[in-house]
Amino acid sequence: MTYCVGLLVKEGLVLISDTRTNAGIDNIACFRKLHLFEGPDRVVAISTSGNLSISQAVLGLLSEGFSNPETGETETLAKATSMFHAAQMVGQAVREVYRIDGPSLEQHNSNFDIALLLGGQIKGRRLRLFMIYAAGNFIEATADTPYLQIGEHKYGKPVLDRAVTHETEIYDALKIGLISMDSTMRSNLGVGLPIDVLVLRRDTLIPELNYRIGAEDAYFSDLRHRWSEALREAHLAIPKPPYKNGAKG
Amino acid sequence: MTYCVGLLVKEGLVLISDTRTNAGIDNIACFRKLHLFEGPDRVVAISTSGNLSISQAVLGLLSEGFSNPETGETETLAKATSMFHAAQMVGQAVREVYRIDGPSLEQHNSNFDIALLLGGQIKGRRLRLFMIYAAGNFIEATADTPYLQIGEHKYGKPVLDRAVTHETEIYDALKIGLISMDSTMRSNLGVGLPIDVLVLRRDTLIPELNYRIGAEDAYFSDLRHRWSEALREAHLAIPKPPYKNGAKG
Repeated sequence: MTYCVGLLVKEGLVLISDTRTNAGIDNIACFRKLHLFEGPDRVVAISTSGNLSISQAVLGLLSEGFSNPETGETETLAKATSMFHAAQMVGQAVREVYRIDGPSLEQHNSNFDIALLLGGQIKGRRLRLFMIYAAGNFIEATADTPYLQIGEHKYGKPVLDRAVTHETEIYDALKIGLISMDSTMRSNLGVGLPIDVLVLRRDTLIPELNYRIGAEDAYFSDLRHRWSEALREAHLAIPKPPYKNGAKG
Repeated sequence: MTYCVGLLVKEGLVLISDTRTNAGIDNIACFRKLHLFEGPDRVVAISTSGNLSISQAVLGLLSEGFSNPETGETETLAKATSMFHAAQMVGQAVREVYRIDGPSLEQHNSNFDIALLLGGQIKGRRLRLFMIYAAGNFIEATADTPYLQIGEHKYGKPVLDRAVTHETEIYDALKIGLISMDSTMRSNLGVGLPIDVLVLRRDTLIPELNYRIGAEDAYFSDLRHRWSEALREAHLAIPKPPYKNGAKG
């Protein structure tokens, strides 16, 4: 399982990914799911969820290059001229892996299960955040809904729905994303530490933060504890239901 | 869609169900999903999720009676001698509906989608809470995990995981269940008001509360507002991430 969330706020981009993979409950491992492609004129980050062999194949094609069936040209992320172009390229790479591996996976009743978050900026172009589906199509985060999630997204969605807007300060967005990750980790054992985080301010082209949160991380432990305590106090502070009418007794 | 949660605490049983059904996003209706079977020696409550025709057929068999294929006797919930027996009977009714409707549903590519919560007490026997699956098998809530959910369960699970134990006071359990319902309603439009709630104290055999929360309900509106405000204050009170190391800048 996996949980990754991307937040695109006024000041910039936040990406947060867990690192746990599992092939059955008895085969759990740690793999980095947040990948950075940097160049002098670009920062492009990709988070992946789904079948690990598919996501590694997609990343392999994007860094080593693959032939565009329409133009015959070799495509790599380093050549993308905009983030929209990069999203198209990621979609093409997903379709290429499907062409190669899809039929065999189907013969073994394995779903072609993959989703990716793509965020970043190329010099002179806009900072953008996309989610790419298994069919290679994609959607983009906007000011109305400034976050996108892949993997085990439901447990951590309520806090995002309540707290994140386009105007949210970038380190608050990181904090709320970490609370969302905490909620997911508590309810799904398939999502676990360490957590990789990326903060990229708009128009800087250099990640301000590229950090791994491990099991001993004092701030994240404190966040988890404070959030738990605050929720406990919050529900204790709400009065008990006064309902009496409709009682049959 | 549906969300129902049952909580079995030391003092008794709480059941909470929404009432929204949908056949596609453009066909939304309101149906009661929390059903009460009362007798002088018993209170048995059932909440349903899944295909409405299947859950109505199951409830019909349980109240009108159906032939037990193993004994040839007519089974109705009124005849159940214990809650375990009642759970077996609900499972048999689900299997009977599958026998009648399953093949036709499959021909039309409709899943046999049904799950039920069964809670209550029969005089001289224990108050218990079960979840019955589409295959007719079932599990029971215990002191370790005193709640069971059916339908859209993920959004509302984190608050239950954090806040509910077997020792939780019964109206606190109702309150936490309503917070869980609120989180679900915010994130899934397929779950909506009104909400039906039932409170049954252990060994009383009479529901203390059998109540419908509508759109104008002052307490529930206040709970939703207070919870939102408390979450907002909670995340504002957590310090911003101090992470600086690992930065590439």
